[in-house]
Amino acid sequence: MDTRPIGVFDSGLGGLTALRELARLMPEEDLVYFGDTGRVPYGGRSPQVITRYARQDVAFLRTFDPKAIVIACGTVSATALDALREENPIPIFGVVEPTARAAAHVTRNGRVGLIGTRASIRSGAYGRELGRLKPGVEVTARACPLLVSLVENGRFRPGDIVAETVVAEYLTPIKAAGVDALILGCTHYPLMRDIIGAFMGPGVTLVDAGEQCARWVKKQLEWDGLRNQRPGAGRHRFFVSDSAGDFSELATAFLGEDVRGGVEQIDITAY
Amino acid sequence: MDTRPIGVFDSGLGGLTALRELARLMPEEDLVYFGDTGRVPYGGRSPQVITRYARQDVAFLRTFDPKAIVIACGTVSATALDALREENPIPIFGVVEPTARAAAHVTRNGRVGLIGTRASIRSGAYGRELGRLKPGVEVTARACPLLVSLVENGRFRPGDIVAETVVAEYLTPIKAAGVDALILGCTHYPLMRDIIGAFMGPGVTLVDAGEQCARWVKKQLEWDGLRNQRPGAGRHRFFVSDSAGDFSELATAFLGEDVRGGVEQIDITAY
Repeated sequence: MDTRPIGVFDSGLGGLTALRELARLMPEEDLVYFGDTGRVPYGGRSPQVITRYARQDVAFLRTFDPKAIVIACGTVSATALDALREENPIPIFGVVEPTARAAAHVTRNGRVGLIGTRASIRSGAYGRELGRLKPGVEVTARACPLLVSLVENGRFRPGDIVAETVVAEYLTPIKAAGVDALILGCTHYPLMRDIIGAFMGPGVTLVDAGEQCARWVKKQLEWDGLRNQRPGAGRHRFFVSDSAGDFSELATAFLGEDVRGGVEQIDITAY
Repeated sequence: MDTRPIGVFDSGLGGLTALRELARLMPEEDLVYFGDTGRVPYGGRSPQVITRYARQDVAFLRTFDPKAIVIACGTVSATALDALREENPIPIFGVVEPTARAAAHVTRNGRVGLIGTRASIRSGAYGRELGRLKPGVEVTARACPLLVSLVENGRFRPGDIVAETVVAEYLTPIKAAGVDALILGCTHYPLMRDIIGAFMGPGVTLVDAGEQCARWVKKQLEWDGLRNQRPGAGRHRFFVSDSAGDFSELATAFLGEDVRGGVEQIDITAY
């Protein structure tokens, strides 16, 4: 039993898809979320810059003495997981391994689609993990650099013509490849789940990085005896690196939990 | 006569629209360009964060002992010009005043359209300047938060369905207001000039922040006796805060000047 909080971070809003699932699966755990809204998006940046930003994100979360840190960001998970693990003596979980595992499990025809940021796709991390778990799997990958900007601007709902046009353009070659599973390799993408699902059709299973990661974290904490068994609801705290306003509104809408007034701004460059 | 360089900065690629014009109007001047590609885009961030980033951008350029600094960024010009001027004892030029001046001059019917980033529109800076120069002018303003991301991803050419869809959505209410001049209040937008012009039609004059700013800077330097009269071509240097690769390719295509191999990466947070 360990009552310390779990730290969770992302470049912005996307990691909330993981946080929501963590809260649902482990309602008694304290969660500390950091969204690097002053430097979002990460996905078009170089591995060096992504790693530098991620180190600061982890250093900030470690000030809360967390029992584990969840990289609720496909870009950082695909780019800097090894470096962050080497440098920090606490469990650090990324989204790539659990997501690849889930995709390897659900595909029937061995054809898996993968969408992510430019940095995630360039890293090859998801493909390597899938190849290891299911040799011979055929991965059709596509970088989708505009999706994070759309989500961060609140444009992820069905009927948004721009969001639908962008999704159709990115996914057309993946649909044409005949995949039966599609990895949403960036935690921002599940916010567009309805648009993506409508385009791909009912024959394609969407594998959600945030959701898979949350299940994986729960299992790992149980194995390691790190779960908080105390009764009652855990506390959720939210921090961002730019003003709290827009984030609070979108986070409240997305989480179905009123976080307005509870989001604090910090200077991430001080960590 | 002053042979020191002119410093120019933007959040990313956009300021190149001003740099290209500065180089065309004053080919003998040395120019030092900084694009903050490690933190682009600026336009959705808060005034505090924009001002903090801009201070670092100026501090970096001042290491070259420039005779003047051009804020080739609508967001910073609209948000932080006064603060930067107070803190720095060299001429600092923004894009708002020259652009508003040009729009006030070209409009015949007194109806002016304005597009910019969320921060620029929120600031009200363009509208205040227009109202001062041409009392009674009717400004129809619209924040266009996705355009910078599109441009930074190289998606600004006619035929790009996504870019055309986004532009049509943003500009429809401005076109409906019957404007005869449209301020492109962000230096990224002139890269989309063809798409924007095609949508607005031949009756609407596009006022380009980068171009107007460059003309204004030339005039001011002449009045102040700060022009470089030495014969021969000036030197152009380029710096970015993330890896040089993508920037070099897009800058080369846009400037029609091969800058590949000549772009250096720096750590802007050290300034």
